[in-house]
Amino acid sequence: MGKVYNELAGQNRDRLAALSDGIFAVAMTLLVLDLHIPVSDRIRTEHDLWAALLPLSGTFLAYCMSFLTLGIFWLAQQAQLNFLARSDRNLTWIHIVFLLFVALMPGSTALLAAFIGFRIALIGYWLNILVLGALMFAGWEYAKRARLLKGDLPTGVDAAFRRRIFTAQALYAFGAALCVFNTYWSITFIVLVQLNYVIAPRVRWLRQL
Amino acid sequence: MGKVYNELAGQNRDRLAALSDGIFAVAMTLLVLDLHIPVSDRIRTEHDLWAALLPLSGTFLAYCMSFLTLGIFWLAQQAQLNFLARSDRNLTWIHIVFLLFVALMPGSTALLAAFIGFRIALIGYWLNILVLGALMFAGWEYAKRARLLKGDLPTGVDAAFRRRIFTAQALYAFGAALCVFNTYWSITFIVLVQLNYVIAPRVRWLRQL
Amino acid sequence: MGKVYNELAGQNRDRLAALSDGIFAVAMTLLVLDLHIPVSDRIRTEHDLWAALLPLSGTFLAYCMSFLTLGIFWLAQQAQLNFLARSDRNLTWIHIVFLLFVALMPGSTALLAAFIGFRIALIGYWLNILVLGALMFAGWEYAKRARLLKGDLPTGVDAAFRRRIFTAQALYAFGAALCVFNTYWSITFIVLVQLNYVIAPRVRWLRQL
Amino acid sequence: MGKVYNELAGQNRDRLAALSDGIFAVAMTLLVLDLHIPVSDRIRTEHDLWAALLPLSGTFLAYCMSFLTLGIFWLAQQAQLNFLARSDRNLTWIHIVFLLFVALMPGSTALLAAFIGFRIALIGYWLNILVLGALMFAGWEYAKRARLLKGDLPTGVDAAFRRRIFTAQALYAFGAALCVFNTYWSITFIVLVQLNYVIAPRVRWLRQL
Repeated sequence: MGKVYNELAGQNRDRLAALSDGIFAVAMTLLVLDLHIPVSDRIRTEHDLWAALLPLSGTFLAYCMSFLTLGIFWLAQQAQLNFLARSDRNLTWIHIVFLLFVALMPGSTALLAAFIGFRIALIGYWLNILVLGALMFAGWEYAKRARLLKGDLPTGVDAAFRRRIFTAQALYAFGAALCVFNTYWSITFIVLVQLNYVIAPRVRWLRQL
Repeated sequence: MGKVYNELAGQNRDRLAALSDGIFAVAMTLLVLDLHIPVSDRIRTEHDLWAALLPLSGTFLAYCMSFLTLGIFWLAQQAQLNFLARSDRNLTWIHIVFLLFVALMPGSTALLAAFIGFRIALIGYWLNILVLGALMFAGWEYAKRARLLKGDLPTGVDAAFRRRIFTAQALYAFGAALCVFNTYWSITFIVLVQLNYVIAPRVRWLRQL
Repeated sequence: MGKVYNELAGQNRDRLAALSDGIFAVAMTLLVLDLHIPVSDRIRTEHDLWAALLPLSGTFLAYCMSFLTLGIFWLAQQAQLNFLARSDRNLTWIHIVFLLFVALMPGSTALLAAFIGFRIALIGYWLNILVLGALMFAGWEYAKRARLLKGDLPTGVDAAFRRRIFTAQALYAFGAALCVFNTYWSITFIVLVQLNYVIAPRVRWLRQL
Repeated sequence: MGKVYNELAGQNRDRLAALSDGIFAVAMTLLVLDLHIPVSDRIRTEHDLWAALLPLSGTFLAYCMSFLTLGIFWLAQQAQLNFLARSDRNLTWIHIVFLLFVALMPGSTALLAAFIGFRIALIGYWLNILVLGALMFAGWEYAKRARLLKGDLPTGVDAAFRRRIFTAQALYAFGAALCVFNTYWSITFIVLVQLNYVIAPRVRWLRQL
């Protein structure tokens, strides 16, 4: 009985990393295309130009936030792939579906930026983050079960990964639930959670979230 | 007599892999640009926004399907390159032409999504998949003949690759032929074949297709 | 006296290759964006769709030609970088300027496709190819002078690289000069030269061009 | 006490390099999309086409300048990463924010090209360069303090990096300050500084800037 194709495919961890870096890079750079320079003949003074640029500040903030969110998930995936000895076909597919939702992130953010007071836009944004977290979790659990991890995994790594995903997703879900009162509360809370993960302050209990 | 340029070019398997990862990453991310966020002043309530987002669900499904199709062929090419000891100029050109049709895939899918009831759109989509499969087959056969494969190829690998390409292409061709009756039957059949390759269910006879 | 920054920068051959693969991949995939799917409510029959798709065949040919031209230069740069032991700051800048003209290639082709009977468009396209060839030559000559090549360079490699660049550029220049009579003669000749480099036929005197 | 996630993330220097190469490649290639080919039925003679292409020369110069500016910072980051033994989470975030401003560079250049006589556009362009320099400096200083550099750092490397960043930023700031008189003086001065870094002339005092 010959080999089955599915046992041969998707074993190359480094090409999965390369495809991921490419998709993250394109998604992060395409975000900037939403910042349209206001070219117009009606702009004649420094004051006109300033007035034309000011409305872009909201889009600029959304751009920064999307970029940082994609950075958070890029770091999460990088950390996970670093502990793999190899990949297999199923794990590769989990990551390809993860990348599908990575490429959706700019769209979710643009929807939220355009309809910042609407619950549907906020729920859509949160669902995107939730699916990304769920796929990271699924990838880690599958890698453990299929014995794809490196042999010399330091103690505590597994617990740290699980704790990080669950804490983060609990905080995001709490933030999304705040939209019962007001979507601005939701957004402020989610942004603070994300900034906490970027800056990783020295306050001990914040670092351990 | 000096060396001929053609013997010097295209020997680097890893740069071919890097170019491929780049083209797949850009093609997979550009798909998302077709999902236009409906920005309009006429959207004033949650209900308006929901009504504006609903028509996007068809484009979203086409986006997912394109992404998974490109994932299937990315895995196929990765598996093939993994068994190469090195590349040469001719094999590199086979893969560059393969990448040309990879970059066309989003266009074929957009055509099918826009004209879902038209046979020409379906035949175009199928021809794209057919050419991709034919080039994968040509690349594998050439690599064998030109002795580019690694020396320690496990038995059964060659048969597994060939069986996979022929079974898949036979199924796609059968699906395309169903358009004699109805293009929706064709699409449903092709989508089921693709999902089978993504999910790889535990049913033995399905896994071995 | 401390080190000068210029001696520290640009030594990494592999990152130069990675940047090049990225720029080639984006340029080759962006070409496809010029193939606009004709979405219109006026297309109601298979015949309408066929009539709407037919005018795209010219753009499709230009897309294929651009893709193959970029493939030719990607192979040329790959072959050159393969013989480098390391890079330095000056060589890296030669390649960055090379990449600038790589990214221009889709624009030159689009200009030629839109104004196929105009000498200016043809001269612009030829100038782009000429600059790419000149920079490949400059990079190779500089690498030899700055002793950046690997020590074990097989005999004949240098002659093969130089012969290839000069023969190709002489043929392109002859093709461009044909526009004195007619731009279509020029294009046909240049396309045949490019196809010869892609296919590399078994006829001995064609292979050695 | 288990490991904390933040100690596990962002250690892979090579994936940071790969993400950076991807973002630089996309940003450098997207610049070219601003060069719109003038497709029009009113262009009927060679003279018409020449007249339509001539206004593109300004955009073409801005494209070249952006490309070279991104090349300068790509080289700077490459040189820095080359001296790292490994990365950590904080350094990775410094570089992700650096990449955020890399992706903004095309926008800043487009703003300057569209409003070349306006001080706000010039200050915006300069701020972008300033932030990029500040983040390169922050990354280097952090890498030293966190002991991420390779052990065998040649003497003078640290001084060379610091001198380069400070000299360059002082020259850019002086150029930006010239806009008190005239923005064209500013632009000319900044362009000359950038060309000096690209060409690195043999005049000793210019090389050592």
